Amino acid sequence: GYTPNELARNLFRNRTGIIGVLIPDLDHPFFSAFARETELSLYKLGYKTMICNTVGSSNRERDYLNMLDRNMVDGIITGAHTLHKTEYANRKHTIVALDQDFGPEIPIIGSDHLYGGKLAAEIMIKNGCKRIIQITGIAPNVAANDRHTVFEESLKAHGIEVLNIEMEWNKFDMNYFKRVAVDVFEKYPHIDGVYGADMVVCACLGEARKRKLDIPKDIKFIAYDGTFITESSFYNITAIVQPINILAQKTAQMIVSLIKNENIEKEVIVPISIRYGDTC
Amino acid sequence: GYTPNELARNLFRNRTGIIGVLIPDLDHPFFSAFARETELSLYKLGYKTMICNTVGSSNRERDYLNMLDRNMVDGIITGAHTLHKTEYANRKHTIVALDQDFGPEIPIIGSDHLYGGKLAAEIMIKNGCKRIIQITGIAPNVAANDRHTVFEESLKAHGIEVLNIEMEWNKFDMNYFKRVAVDVFEKYPHIDGVYGADMVVCACLGEARKRKLDIPKDIKFIAYDGTFITESSFYNITAIVQPINILAQKTAQMIVSLIKNENIEKEVIVPISIRYGDTC
Repeated sequence: GYTPNELARNLFRNRTGIIGVLIPDLDHPFFSAFARETELSLYKLGYKTMICNTVGSSNRERDYLNMLDRNMVDGIITGAHTLHKTEYANRKHTIVALDQDFGPEIPIIGSDHLYGGKLAAEIMIKNGCKRIIQITGIAPNVAANDRHTVFEESLKAHGIEVLNIEMEWNKFDMNYFKRVAVDVFEKYPHIDGVYGADMVVCACLGEARKRKLDIPKDIKFIAYDGTFITESSFYNITAIVQPINILAQKTAQMIVSLIKNENIEKEVIVPISIRYGDTC
Repeated sequence: GYTPNELARNLFRNRTGIIGVLIPDLDHPFFSAFARETELSLYKLGYKTMICNTVGSSNRERDYLNMLDRNMVDGIITGAHTLHKTEYANRKHTIVALDQDFGPEIPIIGSDHLYGGKLAAEIMIKNGCKRIIQITGIAPNVAANDRHTVFEESLKAHGIEVLNIEMEWNKFDMNYFKRVAVDVFEKYPHIDGVYGADMVVCACLGEARKRKLDIPKDIKFIAYDGTFITESSFYNITAIVQPINILAQKTAQMIVSLIKNENIEKEVIVPISIRYGDTC
């Protein structure tokens, strides 16, 4: 019953065949889908995936960066937003960042959020919305925030009122989103459009039901991300869809190329699309 | 800049500090929540989590069992249902199984599905349902099937009609669940109760809306699992709730005890609860 010891073999080759994948929270449909697709893609490329939920603890992200320095993982894919970018300096650079700019040494990948925000605005305009709430809640300095700036600019250029509610970021439980939804309708009872990430838009739809609003006649909804929960709700929610499978495949290819010292693009942007549902 | 090589240290200690977690699909809210809580619990116990989506490929599950034999992981937690139990014989036995009986050598953990199924039946009875569809779709020989047998027995003992639709197992995409929902209402348009796992119940709620049924007057719904999607839907869905955090914490403790050669219980059952919503 001799079985070769993989540890010894890895030591000899100075590689582990493991990639660390840092995400804020697996219990969030965007990140669970991203983790799923990334794991499958890395596996096809010969790598195993070590997963880390960083939510609520910046030490965990640092811990994984230390593991990279100590050769416990060959590379890191980070979709987490807990550490300052200076923490990423003076590290081994086999790191790929999702939606986050850690400086010129670390490649970044993300969806075309500028176009996503513009597209959402255009659909709201076409549907005659006049008083729209946008619910933000992304870590500062993250490319994904583009979806909000461009959305607001596009609507304001058409003289349409845009209100803003900012959520705490890295807070992903449904009860919190429901409290935000109550807040939205208490502060701004006369809105006729809601734009935000999937989960908080789901919560706002539930709140609109309690207030006996007619959807989409009285109020329209566009969700950003387009994960399965926008399709599993009572209404099919009109959504700007991030191509999570393509994001994950490209991210996996990028990290493996980096590990192999191949040249890669420093910034990769993947196209987004719209999926029309019953809500806008 | 000397950094100790963790690989060499692990080789010396003959441990990796890594647990493999096998689940069918991270893009399923029960398994993503279980993976999240397991990862956090293992981390607190000093272990890293290597994740594997086994859906659609029994080779991947076998691959991880081989990794256990080759000392690439110290233990395996398996919630996957792709291999026959004979594959688990003649392996290193640092394995804990979620909801699945792989024989006397491998400890099993799961929720109290017998009580869960009974509770769901009692609520359907109390609410006056007379013609109920139950949607099944769990791998054969899995403890979680108890929720269905006991549900049906309890209702039949009260003279209530129970219809069954069986889904393919290991198939988790929303479009499939929507096709099942259409099927349910086409085959059995006069049902007044629906019982199944979270996602397919969400799909049935959407189909009931299209058919202009009044919820919960015309038709009632109870979902099994009670993940966040039962709370993010338009209605709060009445749900039998598996305590995923407790399941994960206990599973993590069990595998770590096994690795340390401590005695553990061979079968652990955790209590479930009901969360009332708007649908039953």
